[in-house]
Amino acid sequence: MTVAAAARAAKSGEDAGGLSEGMLGGLLGYRLRRAQLKVFEDFLASFAPLGLKPAQFSALVLIAANPGRSQREIAAALGIQRPNFVAMMDEFERRALARRHRSQTDRRSHALALTEAGEALLRQGRTIVAAHEARIAARLNETERAELMRLLALLGPAAAD
Amino acid sequence: MTVAAAARAAKSGEDAGGLSEGMLGGLLGYRLRRAQLKVFEDFLASFAPLGLKPAQFSALVLIAANPGRSQREIAAALGIQRPNFVAMMDEFERRALARRHRSQTDRRSHALALTEAGEALLRQGRTIVAAHEARIAARLNETERAELMRLLALLGPAAAD
Repeated sequence: MTVAAAARAAKSGEDAGGLSEGMLGGLLGYRLRRAQLKVFEDFLASFAPLGLKPAQFSALVLIAANPGRSQREIAAALGIQRPNFVAMMDEFERRALARRHRSQTDRRSHALALTEAGEALLRQGRTIVAAHEARIAARLNETERAELMRLLALLGPAAAD
Repeated sequence: MTVAAAARAAKSGEDAGGLSEGMLGGLLGYRLRRAQLKVFEDFLASFAPLGLKPAQFSALVLIAANPGRSQREIAAALGIQRPNFVAMMDEFERRALARRHRSQTDRRSHALALTEAGEALLRQGRTIVAAHEARIAARLNETERAELMRLLALLGPAAAD
């Protein structure tokens, strides 16, 4: 699509296929979802060799950063439903990436920790995520990236959530 | 959580539960996903009475805004995989919200249109989405909302996607 065609499309609320977006183009929720799906596409492709989805990568980071914290606490911090997080931990245990052990302080709860294999996978993941972030931020300058982070934090889970 | 506690938490990279976010807090992809999930929570609650999920609402808007366009074109504009969109149209037909008919210009493709019930549901949806958008934008001022829309458009599907 030429620049002129893009400008015409933007003006008339049409996308590249000549379709009208109707009211969608003006909705924050729609723009947010489309941007997020675009970013996830790159993430999924980047992490396919490690067999990690975005939520799994986030979980490994949080478990590593909070050794000994409970399944309940990690799930809550990630905003993942408890049963979904239990299923994720089951898979981590099958793949020997993380393990559950009885908490020292509360015998009824499970404390989580990464295995050595989990730590190694996370190290690979950190390298991959840095390249992924650089790719998605390439369309923004430094100021724009910082401003976007700030605005998303305003929309995202409040500190007290 | 008090303002002081929130400030301390933000400073140390900790969330309200006292957990460290590790590297996640600095990742654009993570912030984007958390903000999007937060927005979807409100959307799902708002649209539950209509029995519409976000992608279904978007599809109804696009079908209404592009009468006679094909199933393939609408799916592409929404960024929805073809089989998923076919399943969505099946449900719309079961609920008598939209229908497929043979295209006048291309007998091999299906042109889509809303039924009267679909139009009526969409009118209700437009009212609900306006209230939903107002709620999620309430944490931003006008300038911030406009800037967020602009930055998300830079990240989202390019016009030529």
